[in-house]
Amino acid sequence: MEFKDLVKIRQSDRGFLDKVVEHEKLVLIAEAGRLSPSACNSQPWLFHIVESPEKVKQIALDAQVLEMNPFLKTAKAFIIIEEVFAKLMPGLAGLIDSQTFAKLDIGGTVNSICLQATDLGLGTCIIGMIDRRKIIKTLGLNNETKIVSFIAIGYAKDSKIRNKIRKDISETVKFY
Amino acid sequence: MEFKDLVKIRQSDRGFLDKVVEHEKLVLIAEAGRLSPSACNSQPWLFHIVESPEKVKQIALDAQVLEMNPFLKTAKAFIIIEEVFAKLMPGLAGLIDSQTFAKLDIGGTVNSICLQATDLGLGTCIIGMIDRRKIIKTLGLNNETKIVSFIAIGYAKDSKIRNKIRKDISETVKFY
Repeated sequence: MEFKDLVKIRQSDRGFLDKVVEHEKLVLIAEAGRLSPSACNSQPWLFHIVESPEKVKQIALDAQVLEMNPFLKTAKAFIIIEEVFAKLMPGLAGLIDSQTFAKLDIGGTVNSICLQATDLGLGTCIIGMIDRRKIIKTLGLNNETKIVSFIAIGYAKDSKIRNKIRKDISETVKFY
Repeated sequence: MEFKDLVKIRQSDRGFLDKVVEHEKLVLIAEAGRLSPSACNSQPWLFHIVESPEKVKQIALDAQVLEMNPFLKTAKAFIIIEEVFAKLMPGLAGLIDSQTFAKLDIGGTVNSICLQATDLGLGTCIIGMIDRRKIIKTLGLNNETKIVSFIAIGYAKDSKIRNKIRKDISETVKFY
């Protein structure tokens, strides 16, 4: 598929079929994330991929905040992204904070993860408001772990591709 | 092309041919960025696309810091990404800072921009260290403008696809 078409069919899916996500597909998705670019190739990310049914069930409960995303209980896998130390080149490391570009780089890997899932016929939804403390406890991570992104994955219940609503192009693009 | 192959051929190109980048391709690239996801569909970005030869020449000079990227003078276009106000849903807006997810969202759009360029046969390089003040002046922007990403674009001089060096998968992926 041409990339210009892939970005059109990638959408946030808020409801999934009762159909397992194949482990092999999760490996391919992780690989797409792993290959995305980062400042000085620092790769400031660690992907926690939850696929066992019991853990998925628990994480779906943990992630709930203010009953905002009840559909999470239909997800079949989660990719939880931890921000880790970004080792920059020695020359740069003295000039700027190590994590200066980490959020931008992680945003890129999250994008590749969602696009790879879409290309494999899966649906995704990035969730911003989650209960990080509960997730950290369920995964047995250190209390200081920086969970910065959370993606629900499954086969979308509604396969209809919606039109994307965006600001007018005149508000988002200027040519010089 | 399958997405798993596109992420393998996307690479940082540090040298470009003396060949104009078609305006139509820049429009397609902007569109891919525009369609990428963001928190509450806030789209906290504005793309400044520089393509006129005089401006490209000036921006290449402006962007130089510590003589780190002399290849910039071979680039044929630049996409400079400004972070703008992210309007979140009213319910969330009272709980968290408007820009909480902006860097992650912009990282995603930068990734889509680079992947779309790759799919169109173009090369890109994301540059972190740039002289923001000079760029702001050349583009005639407000001094407070938040320039958060900078992408050089052109037809790559060296079309050889390099193997990607990444941390071992055991360091970046954990399954549960």
